[in-house]
Amino acid sequence: MYDGLKGFKDFYPREMAAHREVIDTVEGAARRYGFREVETPRLERAEMWTDKSGDEIVDELYAFEDKGGRMVTLAPELTPTVARMVVAKQQALSKPIKWMSTRPFWRYEAVQQGRFREFYQTNVDIFGSSEPDADAEILAFAADALVDLGLDAADFEFRVSHRDVLGTVLSEYGDDVDTREAIRAVDKRAKVEENEYLGLLADAGLSYDDARQFDDLLVAGEDDLDELVAFSDAVEPAVDNLRAVLDAAEDFGVREYCDLSLTTARGLDYYTGVVFECFDSAGEVGRSVFGGGRYDDLIEDFGGQPTPAVGVAPGVMNSTLPLLLQRAGVWPEEELSTDYYVLQVGDTRPVAARVARDLRTAGHVVETDVSGRSFGAQMGYADSINADTVVIVGEQDLENDEVTIKDMASGDQTTAPVDDFPGDREKPTYDDYA
Amino acid sequence: MYDGLKGFKDFYPREMAAHREVIDTVEGAARRYGFREVETPRLERAEMWTDKSGDEIVDELYAFEDKGGRMVTLAPELTPTVARMVVAKQQALSKPIKWMSTRPFWRYEAVQQGRFREFYQTNVDIFGSSEPDADAEILAFAADALVDLGLDAADFEFRVSHRDVLGTVLSEYGDDVDTREAIRAVDKRAKVEENEYLGLLADAGLSYDDARQFDDLLVAGEDDLDELVAFSDAVEPAVDNLRAVLDAAEDFGVREYCDLSLTTARGLDYYTGVVFECFDSAGEVGRSVFGGGRYDDLIEDFGGQPTPAVGVAPGVMNSTLPLLLQRAGVWPEEELSTDYYVLQVGDTRPVAARVARDLRTAGHVVETDVSGRSFGAQMGYADSINADTVVIVGEQDLENDEVTIKDMASGDQTTAPVDDFPGDREKPTYDDYA
Repeated sequence: MYDGLKGFKDFYPREMAAHREVIDTVEGAARRYGFREVETPRLERAEMWTDKSGDEIVDELYAFEDKGGRMVTLAPELTPTVARMVVAKQQALSKPIKWMSTRPFWRYEAVQQGRFREFYQTNVDIFGSSEPDADAEILAFAADALVDLGLDAADFEFRVSHRDVLGTVLSEYGDDVDTREAIRAVDKRAKVEENEYLGLLADAGLSYDDARQFDDLLVAGEDDLDELVAFSDAVEPAVDNLRAVLDAAEDFGVREYCDLSLTTARGLDYYTGVVFECFDSAGEVGRSVFGGGRYDDLIEDFGGQPTPAVGVAPGVMNSTLPLLLQRAGVWPEEELSTDYYVLQVGDTRPVAARVARDLRTAGHVVETDVSGRSFGAQMGYADSINADTVVIVGEQDLENDEVTIKDMASGDQTTAPVDDFPGDREKPTYDDYA
Repeated sequence: MYDGLKGFKDFYPREMAAHREVIDTVEGAARRYGFREVETPRLERAEMWTDKSGDEIVDELYAFEDKGGRMVTLAPELTPTVARMVVAKQQALSKPIKWMSTRPFWRYEAVQQGRFREFYQTNVDIFGSSEPDADAEILAFAADALVDLGLDAADFEFRVSHRDVLGTVLSEYGDDVDTREAIRAVDKRAKVEENEYLGLLADAGLSYDDARQFDDLLVAGEDDLDELVAFSDAVEPAVDNLRAVLDAAEDFGVREYCDLSLTTARGLDYYTGVVFECFDSAGEVGRSVFGGGRYDDLIEDFGGQPTPAVGVAPGVMNSTLPLLLQRAGVWPEEELSTDYYVLQVGDTRPVAARVARDLRTAGHVVETDVSGRSFGAQMGYADSINADTVVIVGEQDLENDEVTIKDMASGDQTTAPVDDFPGDREKPTYDDYA
């Protein structure tokens, strides 16, 4: 007997039915905004990550040398892949480019609740617009997807921040400050003790007093962005952009889900403008549920024409979003559904098969016996798959040119003329013949 | 600029829209038969393949040592994974177990037309029935899927064979015959010269005369299975089983797609009973399109209770099936579709956003400007995404409390009261307001 790998999960039908509903809902919201599905390789050249993040990132990747001697990796995220695809067809693609796709990603890391080594995301991205409307459309899609899943404004919040606001404020503390390092410190603010946080800011080149002031400024700025402009005029363009995104979110009907949160920073280095993270408003799901933001430099870094970009990636399986849906009591019911079970008694296969075929042609989910089992065993199986209606095709009934129709909810049954079942009814039930 | 890996393919939206239609059609057929979706790890322990096929199979796998020192591999097929899953929950699962899933697989091999290193299959399997009805249901699903895709009996054929028929006939030639080796030779029959084929049979332990006679017998058996029984009574149970499957296929309405073809063998070792391969009847697609068959021993080999099984795996992307659909002229049109483009002229975003939102709430695919572009640029974009209707929200119109509705097919346009668009119409068009 073999085991699956740790951090990887098998999804059996009942559990998968719930996940399928979640994925279809999230993708449905994206499709309504005109995001178009792409499909992408699971394996990529490892240098797509090591060139930017250094060789040490390999420790977190499923990377290996392939038979052609190339270092390759199971992709830990989609963004570099879609960036590569945009660069490859830049001239042919009409902008804005609006793409989405659902697939697994992999990272080699410690396994914990809601954190797996193989996890599934629906990535949604816009390339080719630097306008605040594009950022806001990403927020609007994400909010619509969560509302479609049954959540409301009391369940979740998008903590919205801005990399350029943080970066410009930080650059006011002098050339010695490592902005990228300091932003990584901000990203850790909620996860570590205050002293450690201030220490990380010190490592990034801020004096203790400056670190204190910087943090106070972020908190004050959350109440009133003008505090930041008062600190330095240089930060005004970024603040204006952040405000414009929130104004667009207002027009798009999703401002209520957005909280200004300058201490939100997002871990990845490539973000440039607005960033946001979705959190459980009830606080039960302790970590960020998912996040997104603007990454205007990545396409150019990959050798393409300068192309602004913004995106978000809700995790749909082996991730935190299912935990939030369960916490809020809106996780889809894990039930199989079956329209008809066609039960055979005796040597009735030709008729039973014809009935099953007609019902399938009408689009219904229909099972019938493929195991030569008894009446009782078939009825038990029909119950186990939650069949709405059982059509009993028995030798005795057939002598009278009839079949028996059993409603599984009530247990009621009646007969129907075999030549008139299903007839031209769209979805014949017990009631049609009783 | 980075390249994708050879043998891996990026799917852009237009091409993906066609593939999505194919996948949805194949999965839809499976769902109507009551196959339930499962989701499965992409990475598995390599021993799931090396234990059975030997270490040399690693040459064809994307296998590597993970950071925990385990030999792991990107799965080249689903069957061992679902077998592992059946074994893990054998007691809890009610039988028959009917599973399906669509996902990529990987093999390291030479790249050629229709053959990629990453390829996508929809796997459909029944566990727990040894009855011919189960084999026939797999054939029926596969035929329904192809017919739903637009093919007919002139386009494709299922070449149906039987491993036990081949094996029993071979065993009549004495204990020195390596049955597995000889069946692999039969699998190569159509792909190599006659002399090479006979040489392979000789390698498997058949004398030249026996090899000739064996091959003649297979050909004669295709015309009349009784020829095989006349050769040896021992083959009768297997012949009866093969006939019973074809009889069930007749009842299930798919016998017309099935040709008896004893020289079809399938390459994989684990098959035990009926096997079949789908071919292009016009012969333009030279290779097998996909195949399936019965593998009754695998679950037990994996440490489970003896559990008969039968399945099929149409390749839906990076595979041969798309070539057949293209050859037959039924490949889905590669077009994007968009219900509405909401065009903004001037400072009209609040109203345009409200209109877009209302149309999305009704379930439509709606794009609007997120790039601050001109009237002409927006109209060009609306055309590029095949918008059915453009709703022009202009400052001038709004002064009259109107929007303009443009039918993109005819070019006709009219105005509608802004407060009455979309109103309570399900899908308002030009005709509703003209």
